[in-house]
Amino acid sequence: MTHPQLEVLRRNIPGLRLEADPAELEHYGRDWTRRWTPAPLAIALPADVEQVQAVVRWAGANSVAIVPSGGRTGLSGGAVAANGELVLSLARMNRVLGFDPIDRTLTVQPGITLQAVHEAAAGHGLAYPVDFAARGSCSIGGNIATNAGGIRVLRHGNTREWIAGLKLVTGTGELLDLGRGLVKNSSGYDLRHLAIGSEGTLGVVVEATLKLADPPPPTQVMLLALPSFGVLMEVFAELRRRLRLEAFEFFTDRALHHVLAHGGQAPFSDVHPYYVVAEFAMRGEADEVAMLAAFEHCTERAWVADGVIAQGEAQAAQLWRLREGITESLARHAPYKNDVSVRVSAMPAFLAEAQALLGREYPEFDVVWFGHVGDGNLHINVLRPGGMDGAEFVGRCEQVTRLLAETLQRHGGSISAEHGIGLVKKPWLPSTRSEAEIEVMRGIRRVLDPRGIMNPGKLFDP
Amino acid sequence: MTHPQLEVLRRNIPGLRLEADPAELEHYGRDWTRRWTPAPLAIALPADVEQVQAVVRWAGANSVAIVPSGGRTGLSGGAVAANGELVLSLARMNRVLGFDPIDRTLTVQPGITLQAVHEAAAGHGLAYPVDFAARGSCSIGGNIATNAGGIRVLRHGNTREWIAGLKLVTGTGELLDLGRGLVKNSSGYDLRHLAIGSEGTLGVVVEATLKLADPPPPTQVMLLALPSFGVLMEVFAELRRRLRLEAFEFFTDRALHHVLAHGGQAPFSDVHPYYVVAEFAMRGEADEVAMLAAFEHCTERAWVADGVIAQGEAQAAQLWRLREGITESLARHAPYKNDVSVRVSAMPAFLAEAQALLGREYPEFDVVWFGHVGDGNLHINVLRPGGMDGAEFVGRCEQVTRLLAETLQRHGGSISAEHGIGLVKKPWLPSTRSEAEIEVMRGIRRVLDPRGIMNPGKLFDP
Repeated sequence: MTHPQLEVLRRNIPGLRLEADPAELEHYGRDWTRRWTPAPLAIALPADVEQVQAVVRWAGANSVAIVPSGGRTGLSGGAVAANGELVLSLARMNRVLGFDPIDRTLTVQPGITLQAVHEAAAGHGLAYPVDFAARGSCSIGGNIATNAGGIRVLRHGNTREWIAGLKLVTGTGELLDLGRGLVKNSSGYDLRHLAIGSEGTLGVVVEATLKLADPPPPTQVMLLALPSFGVLMEVFAELRRRLRLEAFEFFTDRALHHVLAHGGQAPFSDVHPYYVVAEFAMRGEADEVAMLAAFEHCTERAWVADGVIAQGEAQAAQLWRLREGITESLARHAPYKNDVSVRVSAMPAFLAEAQALLGREYPEFDVVWFGHVGDGNLHINVLRPGGMDGAEFVGRCEQVTRLLAETLQRHGGSISAEHGIGLVKKPWLPSTRSEAEIEVMRGIRRVLDPRGIMNPGKLFDP
Repeated sequence: MTHPQLEVLRRNIPGLRLEADPAELEHYGRDWTRRWTPAPLAIALPADVEQVQAVVRWAGANSVAIVPSGGRTGLSGGAVAANGELVLSLARMNRVLGFDPIDRTLTVQPGITLQAVHEAAAGHGLAYPVDFAARGSCSIGGNIATNAGGIRVLRHGNTREWIAGLKLVTGTGELLDLGRGLVKNSSGYDLRHLAIGSEGTLGVVVEATLKLADPPPPTQVMLLALPSFGVLMEVFAELRRRLRLEAFEFFTDRALHHVLAHGGQAPFSDVHPYYVVAEFAMRGEADEVAMLAAFEHCTERAWVADGVIAQGEAQAAQLWRLREGITESLARHAPYKNDVSVRVSAMPAFLAEAQALLGREYPEFDVVWFGHVGDGNLHINVLRPGGMDGAEFVGRCEQVTRLLAETLQRHGGSISAEHGIGLVKKPWLPSTRSEAEIEVMRGIRRVLDPRGIMNPGKLFDP
């Protein structure tokens, strides 16, 4: 409690929890990037919206920077507090506030985990269709701040599509009630969409009203082994044409290698360069026939070298673990991550160039690829070789990212598909957004956060 | 050509068409509201993006206000030029620029009509699912500027959901390329969504990349007669539960009266207070069974007094005309229009209050209701009694709108569901958006249009 004004804050907001133990500072000051040394001033854990507003107003009056904090599962450093910021954790605000069966919406506090949202929706016979592997740890507020994507975007879109309303405490402590669950509302600028994906730089999301969907249809999960990258788009097009795809995820043999090393069962006796996990709706016999026809079409053309169709839920979950286990299996190698996207139509040309680039620049590194083909989204994980210094490794990787960003720019792509810009990708934001766009974003940030206290240093500099 | 600087503009941009004939000023200076006397300075009809930028820069340098202009089918005065503005008509920029079968996108210039977009999509075996009666006259740029809704929102959402990218010339003449067709892009603020629904106050949309959908399934159209308003939500819930609803539109007997007076065939021998046009997917025998079960369920409970199921496309079109012909049939009565929305769950309570209010305040006026129940969107048309002065009539109606806005505010609704705010609803914007929100919107407008030349006076004052 080194800051004298913290005592004022504590006194003025009796219900506010304030933590400054070194272990807490360490815990709350970092996210999954593990690149920066946590050094927050303190951790504030408000119990309600009024306390959030009071904290933000205190921060403005005392020129203290705020880092909004959810599950800190981010991979871009958006929730890192390494410069004496006050971490504003929404962990205590994690309840379901309401459900409306006619609007089919669930209203929640921002600190609730994605998994708890799934469970609450299922309890009402409905579904919240955004999903990804960090579901048990990430918070819905963080999902909104990065417009999180995941494994169901192909069918259901990003987080953005599922936010019927949100409440935002801006950098001046004002509470804005945006969208308010209206299906139709043409009354000026949609500030809700402005807040979604703003990475805590325009304010703190303190409540969200989520749209819910029908529960998913029964699905079938298939794992396919592909002989080359060239056929991936063909397989995708064939499956999309015949089936209602819910997911279409690819990964390389290097990725599978790490998952299996981490514990797991090899799906095929042979090794293949590429694999696909596909999930699709099974609404009756016609879908069964279509699935077999698609599989036959792909094997006849030698697009698919081997395949397995899950027999039951347990095997489906097992096949999914081969894909979902990748990030966890790589964690101990402290991988350097790229999370890039292009238009789906630009995938083949971009990939050819990117693979050549990475092969040339990283000849001795273990590079693990996986991604969401149907969304044009690729994840590239470069593993740190044993014995190489962390800073040297990141430096090497950043040089390659600069080249990759140039390639992306030529293909009209994005340096961040779904992880956000944060600290990690800030240097390459101009490869995706023009100077004129960044200047407009700067201006907008000043409007909502005139004192520059909301997550400063993230996304772009003033 | 009274403005001396217009000559400079003409000289500097040789390809620009400039019109100043009184007939053209009259034609381009107004929209479907017909409440203001057109008085633009001139009409500029650029041929390409560069000309739009040059016009905007000229306007900035000469402090001339610009009114962006599409099909001018708007109902809120957003495209009215009554104060010496330069109308910037996108009528010449009306081509399809490209189609991508893998991304399933259509790239178009802003002046293209909605109907031409439908036709272009159909030509590629796909569909652009936003639709409404003005399809033949309205432009896609105007649709984007108001986030237009229409009759398919229930299934497909508003215009916003279908914009994969757009190019915007801001008030400084900068060209921003927003979204760029990427499915996933978490790289800072989504300025594309900020532009959608901004009614020409942040810039001019000069290109749009539209997402396309699978062609609609075969559908069935049904007209139902309802004995009271109370059962409307019951019928909606029952049909939504059993069928895949594509549209669910209601209108009153007064609305039907005007359509029939305008030419049309009475669907039922008896008169009923309320009618519904419902359209739903017919994918096989199961849907047939579900339709009959739903119909039986509704008639057994006396929720439906009479009904007709279209036999073939011609009759389906005929039933739709009873709903789609309303606006046109009322036009000669110069109706005063409200276009309001609430959450679907708030419909019954709001409606009861609104009906009581309008019955009390408009005892002698002919009030025609219709709307999109599944979107929580009601259209209220008050017809001008013969002999009443136009200004007096509007004055009376605006007093009632003030009361209606208070009712809406209590129910968390919007004073503009899909027509935009423009000039018509500007006085009531604070019933829907808080002062803090409007202040943020003002700030954002200054960022994108620092000289205040983009559609000044519309939406809100500086």
